[in-house]
Amino acid sequence: MTFPVVGMVGGGQLARMTHEAGIPLGIKFKLLSDTPQDSAAQVVSDVVIGDYRDLDTLRDFARGCDVITFDHEHVPTEHLRALEADGIPVRPGPDALVHAQDKGVMRAKLDEIGVPCPRHRIVSDADDVAAFAAEGLAEGDEGDGFPVILKTVRGGYDGKGVWFIRSAADAALAEPFRAGVPVLAEEKVDFVRELAANVVRSPHGQAVAYPVVESRQVDGVCDTVIAPAPGIADGLALQAGELALRIAKELGVVGHLAVELFETRDGRILVNELAMRPHNSGHWTQDGAITSQFANHVRAVLDLPLGDPRPRAKWTVMANVLGGDYPDMYSAYLHCMARDPQLKIHMYGKDVKPGRKVGHVNTYGDDLDDVLERAHHAAGYLRGTITE
Amino acid sequence: MTFPVVGMVGGGQLARMTHEAGIPLGIKFKLLSDTPQDSAAQVVSDVVIGDYRDLDTLRDFARGCDVITFDHEHVPTEHLRALEADGIPVRPGPDALVHAQDKGVMRAKLDEIGVPCPRHRIVSDADDVAAFAAEGLAEGDEGDGFPVILKTVRGGYDGKGVWFIRSAADAALAEPFRAGVPVLAEEKVDFVRELAANVVRSPHGQAVAYPVVESRQVDGVCDTVIAPAPGIADGLALQAGELALRIAKELGVVGHLAVELFETRDGRILVNELAMRPHNSGHWTQDGAITSQFANHVRAVLDLPLGDPRPRAKWTVMANVLGGDYPDMYSAYLHCMARDPQLKIHMYGKDVKPGRKVGHVNTYGDDLDDVLERAHHAAGYLRGTITE
Repeated sequence: MTFPVVGMVGGGQLARMTHEAGIPLGIKFKLLSDTPQDSAAQVVSDVVIGDYRDLDTLRDFARGCDVITFDHEHVPTEHLRALEADGIPVRPGPDALVHAQDKGVMRAKLDEIGVPCPRHRIVSDADDVAAFAAEGLAEGDEGDGFPVILKTVRGGYDGKGVWFIRSAADAALAEPFRAGVPVLAEEKVDFVRELAANVVRSPHGQAVAYPVVESRQVDGVCDTVIAPAPGIADGLALQAGELALRIAKELGVVGHLAVELFETRDGRILVNELAMRPHNSGHWTQDGAITSQFANHVRAVLDLPLGDPRPRAKWTVMANVLGGDYPDMYSAYLHCMARDPQLKIHMYGKDVKPGRKVGHVNTYGDDLDDVLERAHHAAGYLRGTITE
Repeated sequence: MTFPVVGMVGGGQLARMTHEAGIPLGIKFKLLSDTPQDSAAQVVSDVVIGDYRDLDTLRDFARGCDVITFDHEHVPTEHLRALEADGIPVRPGPDALVHAQDKGVMRAKLDEIGVPCPRHRIVSDADDVAAFAAEGLAEGDEGDGFPVILKTVRGGYDGKGVWFIRSAADAALAEPFRAGVPVLAEEKVDFVRELAANVVRSPHGQAVAYPVVESRQVDGVCDTVIAPAPGIADGLALQAGELALRIAKELGVVGHLAVELFETRDGRILVNELAMRPHNSGHWTQDGAITSQFANHVRAVLDLPLGDPRPRAKWTVMANVLGGDYPDMYSAYLHCMARDPQLKIHMYGKDVKPGRKVGHVNTYGDDLDDVLERAHHAAGYLRGTITE
């Protein structure tokens, strides 16, 4: 057998779902996981328990893998370079991945290649923030330019590592300055909604673009994704897809790239965040696209021809299932499955904790209102916030 | 966490694909496999290596499982009764499963409940066969009534354990009589094609029926399945589905039931074989139905509400990938995937041996000729019988 071994660093739900998508391809999947209880470690045969921050662990793991890819973006860049020096293909490679690891590097690169972003600057104290805020004032505006968004350049996600700063006084108290880490200031964009453009690119440069989706956040966490984005102008959808393909090419991304976007009140799109791995905004593809983001990520890192990204339904909705107060989600299956025989449940094998993402549901169909209602009902019923 | 543990006996591709379908449900999957190299053992986390024919092994395995189900029908009935006596739910249970294990029992039961079957009789020697053949002659027919089909009542599949007997002389030499095992004689049915009706039934009696499919055999092995069966009369499709649902109910089947059927030249359907597990004739459901046979089998054995069995495409075609002379199927991926970005490949992780089922492909679309061509091209290219 000549089937390759894909080494996945990180045992979260993205690894779990990538394994699921790799099974039909007959590829061998090897997992480096923090603990045997991690989401992916529960369902993968070949698991190494170890710390990805330790280079020796990573090197031992990589031996015998044909390619290394990731469940998350936290592996130190120098470790990835060491693996490449050992002759192991790392996909995405460190030169690409750094743009998803470091928001400062990402913004500088997007500026360089002319990609529209929110106004931004690296800041080191409250005075910098106040100056940055004031520069955003329109002529004749007598305010102070606040609010401003502060982000740690490394390590943030799902609203973590992000602060909403209302005033210079707020800025003086801002947590990241006290921690002494590099901080990125960004304008608070006047957006009408958030979009995401998901693309996949292979080492020899083939790329596919999924339909641009709308992503709805609640309390800074993705709540609902609608594919395609309802009512989006053809021109804007095309522009978003082309932008994501261009970023993937210019940054040398291999594998899945999610480009999170703001759609502004005046009809422009601005890049919010980048993720170089399968992404929450692409989970709908498992049941709604001809080829899922997970299957295409596997194909890309193996430099296989990519699968068709087109939708299979008029509308697909993904709703995240967050942990509620009631730990037993399995008993909710009876009602959810009986109510909606078309419902697609995707659970991650995680212990339920309030607010923790423990799964998602997908629904699809011709009537968006119906598809949304079914997804929200199931996600709410599983969480325990809907009881009938 | 209250998610149940499903114990799967047997490590073949059906177990592999059931595991794949169980991952999104968050259920825990435990496998009893002959070897660590078995198809499912390659991809499952919790694997026990052991012999299912040994009761102690089976009992040890079953401890901690919430339900036991099967990749194959070879577990001895008395072992299943012992597990039930230990308090472990076995699904399908031994009283149902015996009808898929023993063709004599199956025929007697189907006769009893009035299900149309080929003319048949248990025979013990060549004279019995000649008498059985002669009884099938139409009035005034001066032939000898041959050919006749002989089948061992236990252990046959995919053309194994089946003999085509052309004459009394043939019968005298027939292998099963020499082996001294019970033998079933059946008329050679004048059929126009083979159909399969796949249904799934849960312990509390819910059942769903998939569209009736056409199954095309080559050399006694399933080659292609077309869903739904092209040109089938509405009345006949309904009759086949109702027949399968009735068999599932009367035999007390829990889980997936495949009813293999002959469509006769005079427009009747006769039951050929039964299988009580996910079945080759249902593999198309992975990509062609709202809920796959594997997902519904898991839901059934857990007594969860069943998923929608309706098709997602006008036509779906499954073509089996058999081993050819060339052991490296992975390198064929490049051409197959580039030629058809919509192609769905399902490989089983098995070593390639000539004629061995090592995978299948699914294709779907609106144009049956195109869907068939794509499936046959991919299956042939992977096997090595098509080279461009």
